[in-house]
Amino acid sequence: MPPRLKKLLSYWRIQEMGGLVYLIPAIGLVGLAYALFLAARVRKADPGTERMQEISGHIHEGALAFLTSEYKILAIFVAVFFLVIGFAISWPTAVCFIVGALFSVLAGFLGMTVATRANVRTANAARTSGMNKALSIAFSGGAVMGMSVVGLGLFGVGLIFAITGRTDILFGFSLGASSIALFARVGGGIYTKAADVGADLVGKVENNIPEDDPRNPAVIADNVGDNVGDVAGMGADLYESYVGSIISSLSLGTVAAATGIVTTVTDKPYGAVAFPLILAAIGIIASIISTFFVRGKEGSDPGFALKIGEWVSAGLTIIGAFVLCKMFFVGLGPFWAVLAGLLVGLAIGTLTEYYTSDKYKSVQKIAEQSETGSATNIIAGLAVGMKSTAIPLLLIAIGILIAYATAGLYGIALAAVGMLATTGITVAVDAYGPIADNAGGIAEMSELDPSVREITDQLDSVGNTTAAVGKGFAIGSAALTALALFSTYTQSIGLTSISLTDAPVVAGVLIGGMLPFLFSAFTMESVGRAANNMIEEVRRQFREKPGILAGTEKPDYKTCVSISTKAALKEMIVPGLIAVAAPLLCGFILGPTALGGMLGGALVTGVLMAIFMANSGGAWDNAKKFIETGHHGGKGSEAHHAAVVGDTVGDPFKDTSGPSINILIKLMTVVSTVFATAIAAVGGIFG
Amino acid sequence: MPPRLKKLLSYWRIQEMGGLVYLIPAIGLVGLAYALFLAARVRKADPGTERMQEISGHIHEGALAFLTSEYKILAIFVAVFFLVIGFAISWPTAVCFIVGALFSVLAGFLGMTVATRANVRTANAARTSGMNKALSIAFSGGAVMGMSVVGLGLFGVGLIFAITGRTDILFGFSLGASSIALFARVGGGIYTKAADVGADLVGKVENNIPEDDPRNPAVIADNVGDNVGDVAGMGADLYESYVGSIISSLSLGTVAAATGIVTTVTDKPYGAVAFPLILAAIGIIASIISTFFVRGKEGSDPGFALKIGEWVSAGLTIIGAFVLCKMFFVGLGPFWAVLAGLLVGLAIGTLTEYYTSDKYKSVQKIAEQSETGSATNIIAGLAVGMKSTAIPLLLIAIGILIAYATAGLYGIALAAVGMLATTGITVAVDAYGPIADNAGGIAEMSELDPSVREITDQLDSVGNTTAAVGKGFAIGSAALTALALFSTYTQSIGLTSISLTDAPVVAGVLIGGMLPFLFSAFTMESVGRAANNMIEEVRRQFREKPGILAGTEKPDYKTCVSISTKAALKEMIVPGLIAVAAPLLCGFILGPTALGGMLGGALVTGVLMAIFMANSGGAWDNAKKFIETGHHGGKGSEAHHAAVVGDTVGDPFKDTSGPSINILIKLMTVVSTVFATAIAAVGGIFG
Repeated sequence: MPPRLKKLLSYWRIQEMGGLVYLIPAIGLVGLAYALFLAARVRKADPGTERMQEISGHIHEGALAFLTSEYKILAIFVAVFFLVIGFAISWPTAVCFIVGALFSVLAGFLGMTVATRANVRTANAARTSGMNKALSIAFSGGAVMGMSVVGLGLFGVGLIFAITGRTDILFGFSLGASSIALFARVGGGIYTKAADVGADLVGKVENNIPEDDPRNPAVIADNVGDNVGDVAGMGADLYESYVGSIISSLSLGTVAAATGIVTTVTDKPYGAVAFPLILAAIGIIASIISTFFVRGKEGSDPGFALKIGEWVSAGLTIIGAFVLCKMFFVGLGPFWAVLAGLLVGLAIGTLTEYYTSDKYKSVQKIAEQSETGSATNIIAGLAVGMKSTAIPLLLIAIGILIAYATAGLYGIALAAVGMLATTGITVAVDAYGPIADNAGGIAEMSELDPSVREITDQLDSVGNTTAAVGKGFAIGSAALTALALFSTYTQSIGLTSISLTDAPVVAGVLIGGMLPFLFSAFTMESVGRAANNMIEEVRRQFREKPGILAGTEKPDYKTCVSISTKAALKEMIVPGLIAVAAPLLCGFILGPTALGGMLGGALVTGVLMAIFMANSGGAWDNAKKFIETGHHGGKGSEAHHAAVVGDTVGDPFKDTSGPSINILIKLMTVVSTVFATAIAAVGGIFG
Repeated sequence: MPPRLKKLLSYWRIQEMGGLVYLIPAIGLVGLAYALFLAARVRKADPGTERMQEISGHIHEGALAFLTSEYKILAIFVAVFFLVIGFAISWPTAVCFIVGALFSVLAGFLGMTVATRANVRTANAARTSGMNKALSIAFSGGAVMGMSVVGLGLFGVGLIFAITGRTDILFGFSLGASSIALFARVGGGIYTKAADVGADLVGKVENNIPEDDPRNPAVIADNVGDNVGDVAGMGADLYESYVGSIISSLSLGTVAAATGIVTTVTDKPYGAVAFPLILAAIGIIASIISTFFVRGKEGSDPGFALKIGEWVSAGLTIIGAFVLCKMFFVGLGPFWAVLAGLLVGLAIGTLTEYYTSDKYKSVQKIAEQSETGSATNIIAGLAVGMKSTAIPLLLIAIGILIAYATAGLYGIALAAVGMLATTGITVAVDAYGPIADNAGGIAEMSELDPSVREITDQLDSVGNTTAAVGKGFAIGSAALTALALFSTYTQSIGLTSISLTDAPVVAGVLIGGMLPFLFSAFTMESVGRAANNMIEEVRRQFREKPGILAGTEKPDYKTCVSISTKAALKEMIVPGLIAVAAPLLCGFILGPTALGGMLGGALVTGVLMAIFMANSGGAWDNAKKFIETGHHGGKGSEAHHAAVVGDTVGDPFKDTSGPSINILIKLMTVVSTVFATAIAAVGGIFG
């Protein structure tokens, strides 16, 4: 279908929806309001002793300092890209781009501000009221990020759609989201690991001072890093998937209804575009309701409370999807697509836990292999990561087949929307992790009673599992979103075939497949370089101010924070350029079908590498912790030394390179979709 | 084009060739005769002292013991598959399958027998006549493997084609080659690293005895492993690529000429099938001639002598291809395709050297990163491997585009033939490595004068580089061969489109992409398990016979050899089943287009993983050696300990998992091609 007709069609659909269409951004606002309500509640909680507030203040300031520096660079990037899009594509698209970027920035800012305030209040709650209250504050802090992401996401997409009725310009919004995600995820990933590795190597290894010791100049940077990487980075990543999946489903839904792939009931011809929008709205309501089910009980597993929240929200969404599908469609096709996506998402999360939790044999085997040294620990961890790709990929393949069989390409987008409908609670659970982790750090640095640290440790240990599960979810959703965006790319320029029997496509697939490897190599090396800077700075401080280690002199936290910040922003440039330039170069030089091949190749190896790296990293981490709980000789044993090596290798794997690939595959597809018509017009060599 | 018409066409072409067609197998026989001549020359050389002969005898027996056990299992596998092919496809195809397998076995047997005789004679030549003579014997030994591979390959393919004129049944021959390659490469890879890691960990690390010490019970198994992995395994791998590329070019050439993609000169209408066959024959002659250019000079770099051999043979082949193209075709299209393949092969080899040689900064950086411990060494090595995929993949993509632009799919097959035309000398140079390595081991175990070891060390160090280059070449040729076979798969059932806009294709790509990860995980774990068995056995011998370490009692080499043999053959089964079963399951269940997607996905991630693992492994190995030559503290320093960890991780990477992937991607495509019509007939769910 020619783009012009598609545009007209979608405008017609929106007219039919009438007032209903304004309900969507309104519910986005409800989500946002709930985020603000939670933020106020967190703020009202007692921030504890002066020493606690001082430390938390450092972390808060460091986080804001990173955001401010990041946003400065971002502003330039966004301004340049705004002009490029405006001149090359259209000014409405360029405006959507700015709005999409701004909303992501806003969500990140809100989430980070509250997370860096929730940490000290969580520590204080653990000190004064116990586990139950501490869990509640940490979770509320995380939920601010979660509800900001979905609230601002749906508000933005819904409002633009309600006003203009156009799906084509919405890809500008998606590109804005992707651009911020690139900065937040790649920059954040480099930041957090540079600080972590730097703090550990000089502190723990060279000077034998414990984790989170206030004498370590990099300790604040390390705690800032947790927020920068796991709160802001994760949030921006899922915000990108969230809006990307909704926008593709709108675009593909228009076509699916027009070509009879799905049949809407007679009196609601706008069903195919209303369905994903209302589903997303239901997901927000479900997420809000489910937060009330997250209640810790003294003495019970806090992880269970978080899981109940996720189940409730998934259950409500499934019921909602079923009712909606009955309302709008003849047949249950779209519902099955949504269900397939949602179940695959849950299954990948559970599998991630299986491969990275010390309750199961993969991690235990890595721990066992640590007895014969670092080499066997590394080999075992790499093997676990590689093996862990098998079932998730099979599940994604099956999910795609079901979604496609029931609702065509539209079904694939719906599967992504289904998987992401519960993003509110997923991000909440995920962002809870670094808050609990920070709370532990603050307890340690403020020299609170060990019983406080016990509570925060328990909360933190749950956070490690939820972080791993969240990573799996982020990868799965990135895969489906990229695939949905890929479908809109092909449809937007009427590419009916990107055939592997065509040499330019094969060439594209090979080049695209290689990009995640190159990208991973660059981000890994970036962490190495940034960590080296940090190591030198910490060594310098210890050398020049001997009073620091003696505890008589205060270390200079700010310089370390600023080193991490600068390094992260500098090291982000090359990988970022690759992600933006590769699809444009391939598209304009080799042509749109070769670009299709490139996107396909990048998607496949990207998903594989992301799962491999995330799970290897998670498994190494927990194998080390498993040994630390007394297995295979416990802390300080030979096996423990070997496991520490694995953990260190796993750090950039799981927190920098792996998650950054999510962004790479989505960003490249969005860039291609936005520039699709221009690329098709130029044609390239093999166009 | 329907298969029946294609069959008729190819038969018609062969009739036209007349007596010329018998020239091809005749030149295959010439190659084989030259191999036998070299074998006799090696045999005539003096095998040295009694002690040397005794040790070499152990290695020889161990190698034959492995081959005998392997062939026993193989016989069952081949018999079963023979019946399956006979009943499911056709009996002529089944017979070709047997012949293809038998010829590979024969080449492996010849090569191994001579290699395990050349090793001691190389050591003796180093002892009595110096570098020049030693290089000559080691290279002649390797050339027996090289010339056997190409001689038997071209003889088999040429003879079957001359007699029957059919290309379809020749894929049976290709499948036979692939089946043996699976056993030789995967089994050989597991064997060699189980022995190597086992010998090193108990010998060098636990008991502090040097490499190749005769007191180590696993030392013979270790030396056998070099032959099993790098002579027989590499030979079978390239034999598979060699015959696969020629056979696809015959099949695709028939179609290309019939459909006017290439135009043959009027009086030679058979040109499109004659071209690749005669080109292969020219390659054999060129390889034979080039062996005369490999002459060591006392005091000069033996690596240079080997390189001259490769250049001469490449130069002669290029000239031959040009003249042939002029003879047979209107226009130079096919020549450009051949040239593209040949140059890409050379470039990938050179790039491999760049990333894995200590003369360049990648390896030096890994060595530098070893100063901060094993973790940074591992991260640096992984990053180098990942980064090293970029340019080779770009080059392969460009090569494919050139080949396709100049001669369509036929061009891609011709590029593979071009790359593989010089296989004779490439395998010779490659198989030279383990012979030189063994010679060093024998010198050490026989306690020859250190000056002998100096010569063999120099030869061995060149062998390490040629081994790395050979690995790069094997991967590149596997990629092009798999792609050529993939094209024959699609053509044989008339699949004109395998489009990434189709969900079953995407599902296939995801599943196929995952297989190399799973396969690598399995082979890595296999090495771990097999090495553990070996470690236990060596420990047991040291414990039960304390005289071994004291030098008063002889260790039991045979048990170690038998442990490696049994472990290799047992551990090979699961990966082997995956490679055979995956395409059949996917094809029969999901249908032929999904299978096309699966093959494409496996090809992309397979090539990437193979390059990544081979180059990471090679770089770690040489970083360790670089430190051992006195950098960063030299042998025994902290940096050295860290580098040893990297080297150990790299062992299964570069010698087991990486090379095994070559087989995986080729075997899956051949299986698909042979069973293509049956798969198309069944159709599957999404057929």
